[in-house]
Amino acid sequence: MTPAKKGILERLDSGEVVVGDGGFLLSLEKRGYVNAGLWTPEVVVEHPEAVRQLHTEFLRAGANVMQTFTFSASEDNLESQWEAVNAAACDLAREVADRGDALVAGGICRTSMYKHHKDEAAIKKLFRLQLEVFMRKNVDFLIAEYFESAEEAVWAVEVLKESGKPVAATMCIGPEGDVHGVAPGDCAVQLVKAGASIIGVNCRFGPETSLKTVALLKSGLQNAGLKAHLMVQSLGFHMPDCGKGGFVDLPEYPFALEPRVATRWDIQKYARDAYNLGVRYIGGCCGFEPYHIRAIAEELAPERGFLPPASEKHGSWGSGLNMHTKPWVRARARREYWENLLPATGRPFCPSLSKPDASE
Amino acid sequence: MTPAKKGILERLDSGEVVVGDGGFLLSLEKRGYVNAGLWTPEVVVEHPEAVRQLHTEFLRAGANVMQTFTFSASEDNLESQWEAVNAAACDLAREVADRGDALVAGGICRTSMYKHHKDEAAIKKLFRLQLEVFMRKNVDFLIAEYFESAEEAVWAVEVLKESGKPVAATMCIGPEGDVHGVAPGDCAVQLVKAGASIIGVNCRFGPETSLKTVALLKSGLQNAGLKAHLMVQSLGFHMPDCGKGGFVDLPEYPFALEPRVATRWDIQKYARDAYNLGVRYIGGCCGFEPYHIRAIAEELAPERGFLPPASEKHGSWGSGLNMHTKPWVRARARREYWENLLPATGRPFCPSLSKPDASE
Amino acid sequence: MTPAKKGILERLDSGEVVVGDGGFLLSLEKRGYVNAGLWTPEVVVEHPEAVRQLHTEFLRAGANVMQTFTFSASEDNLESQWEAVNAAACDLAREVADRGDALVAGGICRTSMYKHHKDEAAIKKLFRLQLEVFMRKNVDFLIAEYFESAEEAVWAVEVLKESGKPVAATMCIGPEGDVHGVAPGDCAVQLVKAGASIIGVNCRFGPETSLKTVALLKSGLQNAGLKAHLMVQSLGFHMPDCGKGGFVDLPEYPFALEPRVATRWDIQKYARDAYNLGVRYIGGCCGFEPYHIRAIAEELAPERGFLPPASEKHGSWGSGLNMHTKPWVRARARREYWENLLPATGRPFCPSLSKPDASE
Amino acid sequence: MTPAKKGILERLDSGEVVVGDGGFLLSLEKRGYVNAGLWTPEVVVEHPEAVRQLHTEFLRAGANVMQTFTFSASEDNLESQWEAVNAAACDLAREVADRGDALVAGGICRTSMYKHHKDEAAIKKLFRLQLEVFMRKNVDFLIAEYFESAEEAVWAVEVLKESGKPVAATMCIGPEGDVHGVAPGDCAVQLVKAGASIIGVNCRFGPETSLKTVALLKSGLQNAGLKAHLMVQSLGFHMPDCGKGGFVDLPEYPFALEPRVATRWDIQKYARDAYNLGVRYIGGCCGFEPYHIRAIAEELAPERGFLPPASEKHGSWGSGLNMHTKPWVRARARREYWENLLPATGRPFCPSLSKPDASE
Repeated sequence: MTPAKKGILERLDSGEVVVGDGGFLLSLEKRGYVNAGLWTPEVVVEHPEAVRQLHTEFLRAGANVMQTFTFSASEDNLESQWEAVNAAACDLAREVADRGDALVAGGICRTSMYKHHKDEAAIKKLFRLQLEVFMRKNVDFLIAEYFESAEEAVWAVEVLKESGKPVAATMCIGPEGDVHGVAPGDCAVQLVKAGASIIGVNCRFGPETSLKTVALLKSGLQNAGLKAHLMVQSLGFHMPDCGKGGFVDLPEYPFALEPRVATRWDIQKYARDAYNLGVRYIGGCCGFEPYHIRAIAEELAPERGFLPPASEKHGSWGSGLNMHTKPWVRARARREYWENLLPATGRPFCPSLSKPDASE
Repeated sequence: MTPAKKGILERLDSGEVVVGDGGFLLSLEKRGYVNAGLWTPEVVVEHPEAVRQLHTEFLRAGANVMQTFTFSASEDNLESQWEAVNAAACDLAREVADRGDALVAGGICRTSMYKHHKDEAAIKKLFRLQLEVFMRKNVDFLIAEYFESAEEAVWAVEVLKESGKPVAATMCIGPEGDVHGVAPGDCAVQLVKAGASIIGVNCRFGPETSLKTVALLKSGLQNAGLKAHLMVQSLGFHMPDCGKGGFVDLPEYPFALEPRVATRWDIQKYARDAYNLGVRYIGGCCGFEPYHIRAIAEELAPERGFLPPASEKHGSWGSGLNMHTKPWVRARARREYWENLLPATGRPFCPSLSKPDASE
Repeated sequence: MTPAKKGILERLDSGEVVVGDGGFLLSLEKRGYVNAGLWTPEVVVEHPEAVRQLHTEFLRAGANVMQTFTFSASEDNLESQWEAVNAAACDLAREVADRGDALVAGGICRTSMYKHHKDEAAIKKLFRLQLEVFMRKNVDFLIAEYFESAEEAVWAVEVLKESGKPVAATMCIGPEGDVHGVAPGDCAVQLVKAGASIIGVNCRFGPETSLKTVALLKSGLQNAGLKAHLMVQSLGFHMPDCGKGGFVDLPEYPFALEPRVATRWDIQKYARDAYNLGVRYIGGCCGFEPYHIRAIAEELAPERGFLPPASEKHGSWGSGLNMHTKPWVRARARREYWENLLPATGRPFCPSLSKPDASE
Repeated sequence: MTPAKKGILERLDSGEVVVGDGGFLLSLEKRGYVNAGLWTPEVVVEHPEAVRQLHTEFLRAGANVMQTFTFSASEDNLESQWEAVNAAACDLAREVADRGDALVAGGICRTSMYKHHKDEAAIKKLFRLQLEVFMRKNVDFLIAEYFESAEEAVWAVEVLKESGKPVAATMCIGPEGDVHGVAPGDCAVQLVKAGASIIGVNCRFGPETSLKTVALLKSGLQNAGLKAHLMVQSLGFHMPDCGKGGFVDLPEYPFALEPRVATRWDIQKYARDAYNLGVRYIGGCCGFEPYHIRAIAEELAPERGFLPPASEKHGSWGSGLNMHTKPWVRARARREYWENLLPATGRPFCPSLSKPDASE
C-alpha cells in the first residue's frame, strides 16, 4: 500500500530519527470520547472522526508512526467488541499514515489477566488474537508497550515475533525497575533476547525520569554485549515526585494534572537529551498533545533536514510573536526567553511537589 | 433550518442556562492549525475538518452555541481572504449546530484599525461587511466580543443591531475598566443603551476576576435602572497576577501557560459562582477545552435537568475511577477529594505568581 | 537623668526619624524565656540579663526607643506579680537607654477584661496602676499599643494623658478597621481627639499591609483637619494571606512562621516606603529581630546622617561579602543582587500562601 | 573545676544522649556582633556579654556542651588578636558550663592556609597554638570541625590527640564526600585511625542531608571493622537543593536564608532520626537558635528522662496554646497539627528550590 516508504528498521539502521506520536487516552478523554478509569478505546468504533482527527494532528506535527489506538483492546478488557475495535483502529491509522511519511504500528499492552493469573498460554493467546487482526490489516511493525513486568513483556515479544515483522517493546518502568524488582538493564537484556529490535520505556514517568531509565536500559545492553535501537515515549507531565509507582500514585492523577503539563520548550529539551543519549525513536505518551510532538520535530529539524507540516503555523522559539502589537510581547520572540522562563501557576496555594499515595 | 429550536433570548428570558462554547485559537494552535501571534482563523478554509471536529467536541460537551470562528476575520486583518473565511466559518458552525441543540452566533471583535485611527465610519464599515455574510448565512444571533474600549464596542453593537437579530456584547476588561478608564458599570450602561440584550466579559482574565468584573457590570445596570442578560466567557487559566492588561502581559503568555490551566473542578466552581451571580450565559474563551465546557454542563445539570452527550464518558466528580484497579486511586472517586485537592506542579522551581511585564 | 536628650515630640516635630525597637515576645520565646500562648513578660524579673541583652541589641541596631517590656503586664494578667514586673521592666529599659541615644517608653496594651466586660472604670483603673509605676520610674513618654478596639484605645489614651507626658497610640488593626468595624480613618480621629500625639499600627499584619493601614489613618486625619505624627511597628513576617484577624488566624501561628520571616532587604524596603508615606516613627513588632531594626537604620542613614553602632559589623547591601573566598559569593556584594532575589524555601511541599482559620 | 561531671566519653560510652549547642556565627550576626563574610569571633573580646548570653540560652535549652566560640580564630585569620580571643572564648564557655550540666569543648577548624599551601607542618603549628590555650584553660574535650578535606582534618586530629583529651572530628561534607573526592566512609576511617573518638558532620547541609552523610560514615566504619561515636551538627536550614558545595553556593546565602529556617518540629524529627541512626551527640550549626536545641532535648526527653530548663517556658508540641483565647488557636495545641502542617511563605513569588551558583 505504501511501497515507497522505508520500514522502521531501515530508518533506524540508517541513523534516522523516527518521531513517534503522542497520547490518545488522555487527549481523547479531554475531547470527550474516552472514559477515565476504564481507559479503553471504543471511540475508534463509536466516533472514528475524532480518532482520525487526532491521528491527523500527530501526522501534521511530524509523527512518523501512527500507532493503532488499541490500548487495552484485548478480549479480556473489551469482550466481544475487541475485534471490531482492533480492526477499526488499524483502518484509521492506515488511512492517515498514507497521507504522509508515516508507518502503522500495531500495539498491544499488558493484560488485566496477568496480575491475577500468570498463565503464559492464556495471555499469549490474548496477544495472538490481536496480532491476527494486525496481520490481516498488514501493519508495518508492532509495539508491545506499557508492560510493568519483564516476564509478560517477553511473552508479548515472543508472540509478536511470530509475525516476522519488526517488534518494538517498551515498559512503563522507572529507574527502580519492574514490578518484580528486575532492574532496567536486565529487562533490556530479556527483551532483546526475546526478539525485540527496538526497546525503551513509555508512560508513567516524566521526561527526565524516562530518559534516566533509558540510560539504564542502554547500559544493560552494553554490559551484555547486545544491541538494539532505543525508544522513549514519556509522559507529557512533570513527575519528579511520583515514586516507584509512577503518576498513577500521585494525588493529582488523573483529573488535576494540569499544572504539571510540559511546555513545548520542555519537550524540545527532552528531544535533545534523548537524541544525545542515542535514542532515535522519540515520541510521547499520556499528556503529549500534537504541539508536543511538533516540538520534537522542530528541535531535531537540523538533524533531520526538514520541518513538519504544522510548523507552517509555528515559528521556531516563538518567532511568530514578532508580529504582536505589544513590544513587550514581541520581546518574547526568542529562544533565550523561553528557555529560561520559570512559569508560574497562578495558584497561590500551589506547592511544587506532591506526596504519592501509598503504592503497592 | 432549525425551526424547533428556541432562540437565544427566548431561552434566557425563560431563565434557562445557556452553555457557551470554549476557545478556538489556543486549542487549534496546540492542534497545529493556528499561528500564535497572528491569531487569525484561516484554518476554517485550509483545514475545515479540524474546526468541524472542535465544534463537534464543544457540542458533545454541552454547548448551546456554536460561535463562528471569525475572530480577527475582518478585512483589515485578513485582506482578500476575509469573505471566504467568514462564509466557511458560518457553514461549519451551522453544520455542527444542526446536529444538536445549539444556535449559531456570528462573532465580530475589535479591529486593528481602532488603535491607530478612531474612524467610526471606517470601522463600522468593517463590521458591516462581516455582518452581511452572517445575514446571508442566517446566523441565529450575533456577538460583539473582545473589545477593550467601550466606544468601539458600542459602534459594533450599533452595526449588529441593524440586522434585527439579538446582540450580545462582551468586553475583554477587568475590574479596572476599559482602556480609556471607563468603569465596568459605565461600559455596561453604554452597551445596553446601544442595543445589546446580553452583556458580559470574555478572555484576558481568569475565572475569578472575570466574575468580579461581571458583578460590576451588573451593579452598573442596576444603578442605572437598566436590564440585560449577563454572560461570561473567561480564560481557562488562573491569572490572579495578571494586572490591568490581562494575560497578554504575563511572562508566560502564550507559550508557557500550561501550569495555569484550570482543572475541570475549578470550572465547576466557576460555573456555580456565575450561576449564583445571576449569569445565565456561561462559556469560556482561550484555554477552555471541551472538557471544561462539559464541566459547566455537569455542574449545572441539576438546574438544567440533563447531562451533555460527552458525560457518557465521564462520571460526575471522578466516579469513573471506581473501576480502577488500585484502591488508593478508587479512593479518589468522590467530590470532596477533588474539591479540596491543591494540585502540585512537579516543577521544583515553580513560583505561584508572576510579575506582569510593563503594560501600556 | 538624661538631660541632654531631645524628647520624642521634639524629635518628631523637627522632622527627625525615630527608629523604634523590635519584638520582645517572640524573640525571647525563641531564646527560651517567654511562654508561647500566655505571652507574658515575667522574664524581666526571672532573667533580667536576657531582657537587658535584647534591649542592648536593639540599641546597637539603632533604636531610639527602649519600650518597657510590659506587654500584658497589667494586674488582670499577672496578678500579684504585676507591680514588680512593671518596675523591673522600667529599670532595664532605662539602664540600656542611658547607654545611647534612646528614650524610655512605658507601654500598656489592651486588657483581657475588655472582651468580657466593657467596664470603662475598671479597665481605666488597670491602666492607671501601670501608669503610676511608669511615672515613679519617670519614663520619657508613653505608648498605648495592640488595641483591637478604638473604644478601649481611647480609654487608654485618656488615662495616659493624665500624666502630662507625650502619648503614642497604635492599634493592631488592618485596612478593614477595628473589631467593631470602625474604619482606620475614624480610629485615627478618635485617638487624636483623645490626646494622642503619635498614632499608628503595631503587630498582627505584615509590612505591606501595615503601611496600607497607616495610609488610611493618615487620610482619616487629613479629612478631619487633624494632625498627628505617624508610627508603624509591623510584624517581621510576610502575611498577605492573613485575613482580617491578622497572623493569629494563619495556620502557621505561632510555631511554624519561619518561612515567612522578612529578610533585612524586605525591611529596608519597608523603611523606605514608610518614610515616603510620611511616617517618622518606624520600628517593628513580633518577628523583628535586632538585624531588622538595623535595616531600618541603614536604609534611612542618608536622611539621618549616621549609621547605628551595629553597622560596624555590617556593610551596606552585603558589602562584607567582598572578603569571601569564593568569587560567586563575592558577586553577591551588591544592592541589585539582594533587591531582586526571590528567596526559595528549600521545602518542596511549601505553598506560598495559607488559608486563615475561621475568624471571629 | 567540675569534678562531679561525667566526661564526654563516659557519657557516650554509657549510651547517654549528649545534646550539642547551636550556631554562634549567624545568631550573633543577626544580633549585631559578627561580620558576615569574615565570620570571625572577635565579639568574645569586644562584647563578651553577648556571647555569654547566647551560651546561657543554649545551656537552658539543654545543651551539654559549651563549645568555645573560636571558629576561624587561628593566627592566620585573626593575627595578633588570636590569643586573646581563644582565651576569652574559653573563659566564657567555662563560666556558663559551670552553671549546669555542660562540658567545655575547645574547637578548631580548617585553616585559610590549607587551600593555598598544603604545608602540614605550618598548619599543624597553627592548630597547636590554639591547643595550647585550650590546655591552659583546661577544656574538657576537643573538637576539630568544619573540615572540607579529610587530609587537613586528620592533621587536626593528630595535633589534638597530643593533648591526651578526647577528640571529636566533624567534616562539612555531604554524601558526595570531601573536596578531593574522598568518600564519606573513607573519611570516617581516616579520622578514627588518626585518633578521633567521635566523628560526624557539621554545617553546610541541612538536617536530612547531614544524616545521610552520617549514615555513610557509619557504614564506612562498619566495613572497616572500626568503632567510634557518631555526631551530627547540621544547619538549621532546609537545603535539599544546595549541591555538592553546600549552602554557600545557594543564591540566598547568607542574607536571604529566612524562608529556609527549620521549625522546632522539623528539628524534633531530625533529633529522632539521628537517634534512630545511632547518633548520640546531636547538636546544630549555623541557623540553630536556642529553641532548636531545646527541640532536640524535648524530642529525646523520654530517652534521657528529663526536660531542659527552658522547657518551663514551652509545653511539648505546642501545649501552651491551650491557654489561648481563640478556639481555633487552642486547636493547634497538639502533635498531629504541627507534625502535618506544611508552612507557607507568605511570599507569592517564592519558589521552593534554588539553583546553586557554579561551584568549584
